[in-house]
Amino acid sequence: MNLEVPGFVAGAVAAGIKKDDKKDLGMIFSEVPACAVGVFTNNQVQAAPVLIDKERIKAGRCRAIVANSGNANACTGKRGIEDAQAVARAAAVSLGISEELVLVASTGVIGQYLNVSAIEAAVPKLANQLSASGFHDLAEAIMTTDTFPKTVSKQGNIAGRTFTVGAVAKGAGMILPDMATMLCFVCTDISAGPDVLGDALKHAVAGSFNSITVDGDTSTNDMVLLLANGLSGLSLEELSCATAFQEVLNETLLTLALQIVRDGEGATKLVAIQVEGASNRDDARRIAYTIANSPLVKTALFGEDVNWGRIMAAIGRAGVKINPEMIDIRFDSVYVVSNGQSTGKQAESEATAVLKSDRFTITVDLKMGSKGAVVHTCDLSTDYVKINADYRS
Amino acid sequence: MNLEVPGFVAGAVAAGIKKDDKKDLGMIFSEVPACAVGVFTNNQVQAAPVLIDKERIKAGRCRAIVANSGNANACTGKRGIEDAQAVARAAAVSLGISEELVLVASTGVIGQYLNVSAIEAAVPKLANQLSASGFHDLAEAIMTTDTFPKTVSKQGNIAGRTFTVGAVAKGAGMILPDMATMLCFVCTDISAGPDVLGDALKHAVAGSFNSITVDGDTSTNDMVLLLANGLSGLSLEELSCATAFQEVLNETLLTLALQIVRDGEGATKLVAIQVEGASNRDDARRIAYTIANSPLVKTALFGEDVNWGRIMAAIGRAGVKINPEMIDIRFDSVYVVSNGQSTGKQAESEATAVLKSDRFTITVDLKMGSKGAVVHTCDLSTDYVKINADYRS
Repeated sequence: MNLEVPGFVAGAVAAGIKKDDKKDLGMIFSEVPACAVGVFTNNQVQAAPVLIDKERIKAGRCRAIVANSGNANACTGKRGIEDAQAVARAAAVSLGISEELVLVASTGVIGQYLNVSAIEAAVPKLANQLSASGFHDLAEAIMTTDTFPKTVSKQGNIAGRTFTVGAVAKGAGMILPDMATMLCFVCTDISAGPDVLGDALKHAVAGSFNSITVDGDTSTNDMVLLLANGLSGLSLEELSCATAFQEVLNETLLTLALQIVRDGEGATKLVAIQVEGASNRDDARRIAYTIANSPLVKTALFGEDVNWGRIMAAIGRAGVKINPEMIDIRFDSVYVVSNGQSTGKQAESEATAVLKSDRFTITVDLKMGSKGAVVHTCDLSTDYVKINADYRS
Repeated sequence: MNLEVPGFVAGAVAAGIKKDDKKDLGMIFSEVPACAVGVFTNNQVQAAPVLIDKERIKAGRCRAIVANSGNANACTGKRGIEDAQAVARAAAVSLGISEELVLVASTGVIGQYLNVSAIEAAVPKLANQLSASGFHDLAEAIMTTDTFPKTVSKQGNIAGRTFTVGAVAKGAGMILPDMATMLCFVCTDISAGPDVLGDALKHAVAGSFNSITVDGDTSTNDMVLLLANGLSGLSLEELSCATAFQEVLNETLLTLALQIVRDGEGATKLVAIQVEGASNRDDARRIAYTIANSPLVKTALFGEDVNWGRIMAAIGRAGVKINPEMIDIRFDSVYVVSNGQSTGKQAESEATAVLKSDRFTITVDLKMGSKGAVVHTCDLSTDYVKINADYRS
């Protein structure tokens, strides 16, 4: 997919942080001043770049993002903060902008100090080769256990004028609400102040990155950054524009979120867990997440086994008041449980056919009310274990 | 281990519920009236035997337990209740006791109706062959994914008189607090009323079955039943006896609980997660369980990788107020994290040696207070996924 956003350039190099001469350092630069907002991990253990960016972004401005993979710069104390500041400073010097306008991001192994001199040596070269078509390289440079780079670009039209939203993301494990080892950088040429832009971002994150799970773990480094440079001439101050932008932003982030689940470590299936008939949305979300994170449910999905008893058991321990004898469960349109009991062998064999596809929906109807929620998850495979047992070696 | 408790007989047969002519139906019989208490799953989806036993045990009496594997008799509605009652009735007839004095237990696949006629046909033969040395057969008959039968027998002495506590258990997956797919039957010749016996059981369960985890799932069928027939002549009414009995009961259940974790599906390591320095015990338990259930931590244990960053990340998302920069982490006696940061390469290689053993303790010191908790867990291996992907086939 061709990803270009007017006024933004990007690129990546191999700075020597990862082994095997792979791209591991990327940069985004806004050629004009841009408004910036972010959403950060809720984990109490927060990496140095998260701590720095949360401070800097309060001003609502940013010109450049520097991101590395191979090292999370987390649990690195005061030295970690100084290292991240040094990286930002190097980028600021090369780009000729104020250091305060540079945001930093890191992903990779926790607890090791960053190789700052390698990054400082690579930054001038990186800054020199930035281009409008460099986002794909950037997406590659932030990959860790990802098996493919994640990019998306969408446009909207208002009264004959066009705006663009382009974004890159990384993430494949440690995925849960509140975002996990997940980085996402979004660029747009819409015009907006930080308050309204921040609200739009929060709304889009709730329905995308905060509605997926791979393994129930969350990370110290997660962030979503959104930069808006205003070059389209369209402003979020206008209602029609705000509506159109929210829709495009939602679609952009949901597309990336589903790419992340699809790329879940070892995942072979993308499964939507839809809970209906709840008294309120929180109940629905809690049940959906309990199912979506159950190792027994996820291994049964991998085994293509219609073991709905594990779904019932997960519902029963979610901490939400239910009536087990009213529950229906269906795989796509095939009912396997009606009022808490099996619908029989015929339905089970039809549901097995659904399970053999690589994308389907499991719907639970609680019949307690009219609220619902959807969470996207994947199966738990032998490869997930292999990937995570050997990650650092 | 030779397991005999005065006044109790047990046994098992192959009734044809499991494939391959394996033992799948077991029984315990108290030759004299016995006091009985139980602890049952907190899952809201409860199997028929759980619903029946919870009612019957209110009277505080029981003479016999009938237990089957291969079918959980859960999510089977009114018919499931009738089936379980029929099993109890068949046992009562064969043993010549009142139906109300029989408790039932089932474990296995959820959502299928019990083969009652096969059980009814097998019960008379089973009742006929009960013997004092039959507990090992019973332990075999309740196995599902267990790889070994779980039995334990301990004795205590008070002023020259001896009492015995003997117990069998099953469980290998779906293990979390509140007990999971876990059955445990305990027999003792102590004398006690249901109130004091119930308190002793709750106390012992809290420190054993409710302090272990294999995969964070809990089940619809869990129960611990304790029968006391008084034949030792020692009574819990006497303080010295109560103290000695509590100690022996605690040891008995902890031994079985650790056997269950050791036999965790696919597990290769038995790991104690010890949290110290918490403000209160609940905080300590919450953090210990978040670490003990993290798929990323558990796969790293399997891979023998000192990836303490994943432990820090789990601590940070446990929902307990912490100060990341004060945390120490040690593997047995080797400190790998001091005040939130790595202690260096040398310590890490020493910790790797600890990880290569099959039993060790990971200790987290929060330095926020003086309270602590221990949770026992195991690693997450490729075999766990294989076992659970193929369970029903």
